[in-house]
Amino acid sequence: MSSRLTPSGIVAILTDFGLMDHYVGVMKGRILAELLGEANPIFIDITHEIPPQDIRKGALKLKFAYPYFPQGTIFLVIVDPGVGTGRKAIVIVTEKYLFVGPDNGVFTFPAKEAQVLEVFEIDSEKVMRPPFSSTFHGRDLFAPAVAQLLRRVPVEIWTKPLSKEALTLLSFPEPKRTSNGYSLSIWDVDRFGNLITNFSKIMAKKHFKVLVNGQEVRRVNTYGEGRDGEILALFSSEGLLEIAIRNSSAADSLKDPQIEIIFE
Amino acid sequence: MSSRLTPSGIVAILTDFGLMDHYVGVMKGRILAELLGEANPIFIDITHEIPPQDIRKGALKLKFAYPYFPQGTIFLVIVDPGVGTGRKAIVIVTEKYLFVGPDNGVFTFPAKEAQVLEVFEIDSEKVMRPPFSSTFHGRDLFAPAVAQLLRRVPVEIWTKPLSKEALTLLSFPEPKRTSNGYSLSIWDVDRFGNLITNFSKIMAKKHFKVLVNGQEVRRVNTYGEGRDGEILALFSSEGLLEIAIRNSSAADSLKDPQIEIIFE
Amino acid sequence: MSSRLTPSGIVAILTDFGLMDHYVGVMKGRILAELLGEANPIFIDITHEIPPQDIRKGALKLKFAYPYFPQGTIFLVIVDPGVGTGRKAIVIVTEKYLFVGPDNGVFTFPAKEAQVLEVFEIDSEKVMRPPFSSTFHGRDLFAPAVAQLLRRVPVEIWTKPLSKEALTLLSFPEPKRTSNGYSLSIWDVDRFGNLITNFSKIMAKKHFKVLVNGQEVRRVNTYGEGRDGEILALFSSEGLLEIAIRNSSAADSLKDPQIEIIFE
Repeated sequence: MSSRLTPSGIVAILTDFGLMDHYVGVMKGRILAELLGEANPIFIDITHEIPPQDIRKGALKLKFAYPYFPQGTIFLVIVDPGVGTGRKAIVIVTEKYLFVGPDNGVFTFPAKEAQVLEVFEIDSEKVMRPPFSSTFHGRDLFAPAVAQLLRRVPVEIWTKPLSKEALTLLSFPEPKRTSNGYSLSIWDVDRFGNLITNFSKIMAKKHFKVLVNGQEVRRVNTYGEGRDGEILALFSSEGLLEIAIRNSSAADSLKDPQIEIIFE
Repeated sequence: MSSRLTPSGIVAILTDFGLMDHYVGVMKGRILAELLGEANPIFIDITHEIPPQDIRKGALKLKFAYPYFPQGTIFLVIVDPGVGTGRKAIVIVTEKYLFVGPDNGVFTFPAKEAQVLEVFEIDSEKVMRPPFSSTFHGRDLFAPAVAQLLRRVPVEIWTKPLSKEALTLLSFPEPKRTSNGYSLSIWDVDRFGNLITNFSKIMAKKHFKVLVNGQEVRRVNTYGEGRDGEILALFSSEGLLEIAIRNSSAADSLKDPQIEIIFE
Repeated sequence: MSSRLTPSGIVAILTDFGLMDHYVGVMKGRILAELLGEANPIFIDITHEIPPQDIRKGALKLKFAYPYFPQGTIFLVIVDPGVGTGRKAIVIVTEKYLFVGPDNGVFTFPAKEAQVLEVFEIDSEKVMRPPFSSTFHGRDLFAPAVAQLLRRVPVEIWTKPLSKEALTLLSFPEPKRTSNGYSLSIWDVDRFGNLITNFSKIMAKKHFKVLVNGQEVRRVNTYGEGRDGEILALFSSEGLLEIAIRNSSAADSLKDPQIEIIFE
């Protein structure tokens, strides 16, 4: 990549393809086929269970995952309701990583948080492979693009530069200020039914209480401190305030809960 | 084999084992154990979510997947309701690929579409490993067979030749001719709820209209051209006519739809 | 370790993290990041669909899986409702394998069945990595521990010895003796709806009949011997008596069945 960043061979993949179809496997097969034996990638699946076309969820899961990968990891991220339309296919190069996928906001977090060095638009005429489908660019466009990166084909040959300012960014709701704290939104619900809010550890400068539907809930450090059935508030592994119930699902017990922070 | 085709080290796996049990992991562990460190395979999961015992679905997903893998890929395909009975365990060698699994029709498409060079029946007495279960040949028979291929143990030692004509083939319904076109069947439904029909791009020699339950639907090239809720017809990434609804599931909206092609 | 057992580079992973979140991918990314390019692991997923916090199910799936892996495999097993509390983080070294995870009983079967050579408690102060979460030790504690093993950092540096007798073990119900046989419990239900009981092949010294809800069911060797809808008894691939229905789900048809062994 302009000699600035060398792929490590790790390809971390995040899609909404699901696991019941052949899509993920075929995309990996295509990358291997395009490599012509010149490189030996390590594929790591982040998740393929992003709900269909849910770009926001894809963006969040990428935010939660990418910082833990080694330098030089290529992130192949495909949640792509606009496949085959005018949306750009892009490569983003940051100080540590490479990101490949559609320019639809799915890269909002690395684009905001990481130092973006360069952005490129993939020239589909130079990269796309038969059968040139307009519905499965993961296989016909993005897989060959990842192979180009792994083979270290100079980007000048198969992309054109794009302004960083041109990147599509999504806005995620910030906590709303109230008279004595914040009113929170839920950004994500994980498999354990934990509710991940938009209140980050960095915003917790003062002592604070957490109210769920008007009732104070206990703040803890670990799930294990809770009693069975007790609603708990703790900072998630991503540094975001999380509402959880020990050995149970907060998402199942609490429908559309109102979550508030009250500074003391 | 027979020195005609050298495995590349890629093992692409398609089963109905699901992901909640230990079956897939154990099968891979067994392959690695049998290799004795002599080869370093790359496992690619095509899917393990074939509905239990659904050989037809397995055959279709294999059709949609295998042509995109590199030469020398071994396809380990196990949808095997007849495990432990008289059904043969086979290796099919085509010009580009190796296929390992039960002879029950799951290899119908490569057997018809690809150039089959040789077929072998695995001699279970020479290949099977303890505990010799009669219910999990993936672990006790097919995994060791794949290891034999990867270790390049000559097939003569552990198989006997089989006639290509002896292969079990399934028949899949072709579109039915009508006075002015075709009446279609649905071959597959993917995770997005897209309905994949049996009408292939190659059959579309003339201009045609698509009717769903008697109403003409719009033909497009990409999902993005549709309006929310609009029923669309387009060619899938596999070259088959597909009925889809933008950002929604056609399978949920249309129960047992009648799909017709009318040539103009 | 203590130079007794060298990791093969294979890391077999079993968790209750599920596949809809980023947790599994992030944990693997962290292992790769901590390796600093010094080793090239092969990750094998056993399953990530252990029901949340179900230590017993995790222990059983591990029992069914580990004996088939090659010598030197590291098993990273995380079903960890007590994450962040006082429960120990441990490494168990057996004659063939290494096990890494929480000391909560999830290693009950290798601890009982295999020859345990050494047990170590991981010193979290020496191993844990930022952001030092108290809810995701998979990423912040266990992944770095696995990297230490793969990099062959002497365990003396980052663990302290633990007595084998101190290991937490779970008890699993054995078959109950009756006047002329056994009354069985169901230990596991797999994706095919097969009911895996606690009656093992080794206990079947004499001829016996199997009753389900008081009715004798046919004993077979393979599913294929059954008629559609017929209840069958056979030994599973794990050597445990299993109640199955051909091409159907015994779990769906039989709710809380009473299963008995009658010696003849």
